[in-house]
Amino acid sequence: MENFIYNTPTKVFFGKGEESKIGAITASYGFKKVLVHYGKGSVIKSGLLDRVLKSLDENNISHIELGGVEPNPKLSLVLKGVELAKKENVELIIAVGGGSVIDSSKAIAVGAKVDFSPWEFSIKNQTPKEHLPVASILTISAAGSDMSNSCVITNDETKEKRGFTSECNRCLFSILNPELTYSVSKFQTGCGIVDIMMHTLERYFSLGSETYLTDNIALGLLKAVLKAGRVAIENPNDYDARSELMWANSLSHNGLTGMGRNFVMSVHQLEHEVSGMYPEIAHGAGLACLWPQWAMEAYKNAQNRFLRFAYEVMDIKPTKSKNNDIEDAIQKLKSYFEEIGMPVRLRNLGVKEDSLEALAYNTMFKGKRVLNDIITVDYEVALKILKASF
Amino acid sequence: MENFIYNTPTKVFFGKGEESKIGAITASYGFKKVLVHYGKGSVIKSGLLDRVLKSLDENNISHIELGGVEPNPKLSLVLKGVELAKKENVELIIAVGGGSVIDSSKAIAVGAKVDFSPWEFSIKNQTPKEHLPVASILTISAAGSDMSNSCVITNDETKEKRGFTSECNRCLFSILNPELTYSVSKFQTGCGIVDIMMHTLERYFSLGSETYLTDNIALGLLKAVLKAGRVAIENPNDYDARSELMWANSLSHNGLTGMGRNFVMSVHQLEHEVSGMYPEIAHGAGLACLWPQWAMEAYKNAQNRFLRFAYEVMDIKPTKSKNNDIEDAIQKLKSYFEEIGMPVRLRNLGVKEDSLEALAYNTMFKGKRVLNDIITVDYEVALKILKASF
Repeated sequence: MENFIYNTPTKVFFGKGEESKIGAITASYGFKKVLVHYGKGSVIKSGLLDRVLKSLDENNISHIELGGVEPNPKLSLVLKGVELAKKENVELIIAVGGGSVIDSSKAIAVGAKVDFSPWEFSIKNQTPKEHLPVASILTISAAGSDMSNSCVITNDETKEKRGFTSECNRCLFSILNPELTYSVSKFQTGCGIVDIMMHTLERYFSLGSETYLTDNIALGLLKAVLKAGRVAIENPNDYDARSELMWANSLSHNGLTGMGRNFVMSVHQLEHEVSGMYPEIAHGAGLACLWPQWAMEAYKNAQNRFLRFAYEVMDIKPTKSKNNDIEDAIQKLKSYFEEIGMPVRLRNLGVKEDSLEALAYNTMFKGKRVLNDIITVDYEVALKILKASF
Repeated sequence: MENFIYNTPTKVFFGKGEESKIGAITASYGFKKVLVHYGKGSVIKSGLLDRVLKSLDENNISHIELGGVEPNPKLSLVLKGVELAKKENVELIIAVGGGSVIDSSKAIAVGAKVDFSPWEFSIKNQTPKEHLPVASILTISAAGSDMSNSCVITNDETKEKRGFTSECNRCLFSILNPELTYSVSKFQTGCGIVDIMMHTLERYFSLGSETYLTDNIALGLLKAVLKAGRVAIENPNDYDARSELMWANSLSHNGLTGMGRNFVMSVHQLEHEVSGMYPEIAHGAGLACLWPQWAMEAYKNAQNRFLRFAYEVMDIKPTKSKNNDIEDAIQKLKSYFEEIGMPVRLRNLGVKEDSLEALAYNTMFKGKRVLNDIITVDYEVALKILKASF
């Protein structure tokens, strides 16, 4: 087991009706002025935004609003938020929405404390030291940004999508009511299921020595997501299934499922380039296309880990050929993705074949890095995976 | 799944050599004056205390020391610590030791902020609102106090042992180096294994609806402890096994393994009376005697949960009789306790038969409560379990 730091300071309020406490919780921390940040309308239509503002009013918390966050959140809106937060002396940013809204809020939170663009953090020219506190009211189970230390932003000028991790990116508190996800479409629910699984799969399939407890937690989480995912797709209003997905969304990306391991999340790195170049592509859908092909390339370097995954998560019956068992497990997961409505080929997402080389080149930060994972992903390997996923 | 609050603010520094960072970490929070609290000599003999003080000195942090904590930590020493912390304006309490030292530190931390005895918190006459921050450098994997919200103290005048839970009891940070547990005796290692398992067993066997993810984590943790426990007893210097136990110690009692469930920890309540009356009895040893008998009484009310435990943790092969399978699993866990050197009868711990009635009566807080668990434990049931464990 490698040395590690475990830091999950986000206080989680989980369950039915918890969002009605937003005003009281905010007041309990002593905040008087907040920025409420949200997306493009669903939280307005559902009445959630009104309920949030009402609860803030009832607790004498003054608020300003900034809506308009899109999937793959844009730097241009972040810069507007930074200006607003500075001008209005905001004390807390409340993200009402999914991972994009939370990530946009996190970027505003670090940007509000410096006199340069927070994109400097995204491209690792600068390291954030301070931040405004961020709270979230989550409306989709997917990115795990409500507890994670990551923040992914797209530069709408350069079309680059970049993530940076920092303990400054941890939410102060997050409110998770599974009922708020009943209205998430089947397609978006499917994308979320893939994203949740991938945060743990990419931690589990990684370099490092024995981490049996961490592995048991990782495999147990994957089993729970597979089971609840099927139910939630079938019956979007199943409270237990929506609950399992929502809690898994948080635990899968708060650090727990990779403690003691070294992971680089190669498939995430590949996918960020795909949805960076094609911003209309949902992150989870991109991952569903790429992971099986990465796994086919990688499994021989981590046979024992893939075997546990095959037997304990994918319920493969052992045969004489371990490699066959693993390939069956990868195929079975791919079929599961199809079953829950995910495309499993990049071409079906609108990716053009003639952009694959640029995508591979961008993944290598234009020749500046390789990804040292259980297989080293360099330009050639990246291109091979992209072509196989196409 | 029941609504829940998940709050694990303790920052964990895990791995080899991490204790050497104590001075730098303390300084990073801006603390200038600390109370170093410890036990009866092992941290002196091992040189750990010296290394801690040296690291503090190197970071210009002034310190006072208070040693002498015993297993089942005493209120009288807590009161001394409170006086010292107040007089010296201590800003942080650093517990160097096991659960007893950490719990003693927690009681000092809440006591330092009030003008009455912190025993008032233990007997629930008062609720703590403020506390000095507490940090821990853990030397034994058992109680999980390094991340938990609980604090158990024994009143040496009345011989009562009482725990209270409060978010004030969460450590600010904890340093966990598995190497520091190499010198823990086989017996104490065994007691720790039981204690770790029990924190999860008592959350898992509880009231509540479907919590599949939480259950998978709980069962995965139990499997990991069973496996690592055997190795650590056999080879006390096995780093991986000591690491698994230490991380399980934290996760088993920080809340994770019971999220969404209602639990009352009946066996802990029974055991607190036993080691309250007989302070020389190690908590884990008491639990090892009591749990199997509680389980035999309780399992028919939670058959499905016991079956998962039997098949997935205890590796029982399914037969035609589910009840037999469950009883086999309980017996197999009892045998495991014996294998790792635990007594499984209260008489072997020095408990007198004529005290069983008083123990049952005390568990019911002298007639003031019953424990509403998957079986209701009232005076008669408590006495039955105690007699069967004798």
